[in-house]
Amino acid sequence: MTSASHASAHSPGIGLVGFDGDDTLWKSEDFYRQAEQEFESILGHYVDLHDAGTAQHLLKVERRNLAVFGYGAKGMTLSMIEAAIELTDEHISAAHLRQIVEIGRRTLQHPVEVIDGVREAVSAIAARWPVVLITKGDLFHQEQKIERSGLRDLFPRIEIVSEKDPSTYARVLAEFNLPAERFVMVGNSLRSDIEPVLALGGWGVHTPYAVTWAHEAEHGVSSDEPRLRLADTAWQWPQAVAAIEAAGR
Amino acid sequence: MTSASHASAHSPGIGLVGFDGDDTLWKSEDFYRQAEQEFESILGHYVDLHDAGTAQHLLKVERRNLAVFGYGAKGMTLSMIEAAIELTDEHISAAHLRQIVEIGRRTLQHPVEVIDGVREAVSAIAARWPVVLITKGDLFHQEQKIERSGLRDLFPRIEIVSEKDPSTYARVLAEFNLPAERFVMVGNSLRSDIEPVLALGGWGVHTPYAVTWAHEAEHGVSSDEPRLRLADTAWQWPQAVAAIEAAGR
Repeated sequence: MTSASHASAHSPGIGLVGFDGDDTLWKSEDFYRQAEQEFESILGHYVDLHDAGTAQHLLKVERRNLAVFGYGAKGMTLSMIEAAIELTDEHISAAHLRQIVEIGRRTLQHPVEVIDGVREAVSAIAARWPVVLITKGDLFHQEQKIERSGLRDLFPRIEIVSEKDPSTYARVLAEFNLPAERFVMVGNSLRSDIEPVLALGGWGVHTPYAVTWAHEAEHGVSSDEPRLRLADTAWQWPQAVAAIEAAGR
Repeated sequence: MTSASHASAHSPGIGLVGFDGDDTLWKSEDFYRQAEQEFESILGHYVDLHDAGTAQHLLKVERRNLAVFGYGAKGMTLSMIEAAIELTDEHISAAHLRQIVEIGRRTLQHPVEVIDGVREAVSAIAARWPVVLITKGDLFHQEQKIERSGLRDLFPRIEIVSEKDPSTYARVLAEFNLPAERFVMVGNSLRSDIEPVLALGGWGVHTPYAVTWAHEAEHGVSSDEPRLRLADTAWQWPQAVAAIEAAGR
């Protein structure tokens, strides 16, 4: 393990470690997948699930709606309602649409389960470097999830953002008055957590989650990217950040 | 007009002026009212609008859902869908529910019309005091409205919050390292913009908007509150803030 003793007076080292929320600190995508399965089972009353490409149609509607609804469970629910009406040619019953609203409500209220090793890893990192939570999605829902996770005390600063692109990360770094070369982002999504940070000249620690939303699976990160470290679990995060600091000096 | 020449060396004066967004800087409630009317006209196909208390039922559903959906047009749309299904005893057609989704989409995409005098007043205030935009609601929608308003350049700092209560304002003031006595909030809602700021010991400038959502109309602000100024239009804001600064010294 590379330790801070490698530090030289000429190099300020890592100045901030950012953490993604959904599927990095706590489980999330499982609940969206469960919602999708429930959605499909309702649609099964009207259409042949294999022929209609129900899940694909839902993804199409969700992507079309991202520019209007943004990310999150409320936008997903509205997209599900719209997709259900389109796929059934306006034949779906109000009772079934009511069940779809309930899917959305359950998704918004799901219990927040912190991923194994996260509290220990974030605590260890926060003892050495400033940390920030940078999470994307619905403001209200994200705030509730942070509270329910019990991790709020670890983060003096929380940024809930509507999109994770280079300009968003640049704005956050500007607020911390920090060059990207001194920033490490830890997350499960190459598209949202890693690629835009690398684009700015920052560093990434990628911890894949078991399931990835198709929209997030599209990215342009090379597997031999020199400023990216892979960590199989949260337990490896402190070591990965220390290794990045050593490499950056 | 009270001017800054009243300042004494012993009193630091006003250190931050906050502005609400919806119905303070730009028109908003009109679009929600229009959405409500369109909703009622769809419901008119199924229920007697006078007997069923459609608008009241919608408000009831919206309030019930605030704890799950939060504020904003997406939550309103989901509440409309739910209220429509309840009010029609699950008899509403998918075609009509589709129209309700469209109401939500239009509400999210409405043009942003800056209220008369706002740009001039905020510019004049920003020339003398630090300013911040503190707006409540859906993160994605609020960001879009700020962009469309053309006012972003006036605000170095923007806070989009999920609820406007004393703890939210206390957090914002802590980030500015400012005691509430040196903070003035300008807004149209006594409930959201004025009451929680007065509760912390801050100051308020109230500019009523032509229409107020019933939920926002409930408040406990006394009409003879000494730390509150009434400004009929945005044009009076600079004078009101200057008067507060003079009164606070």
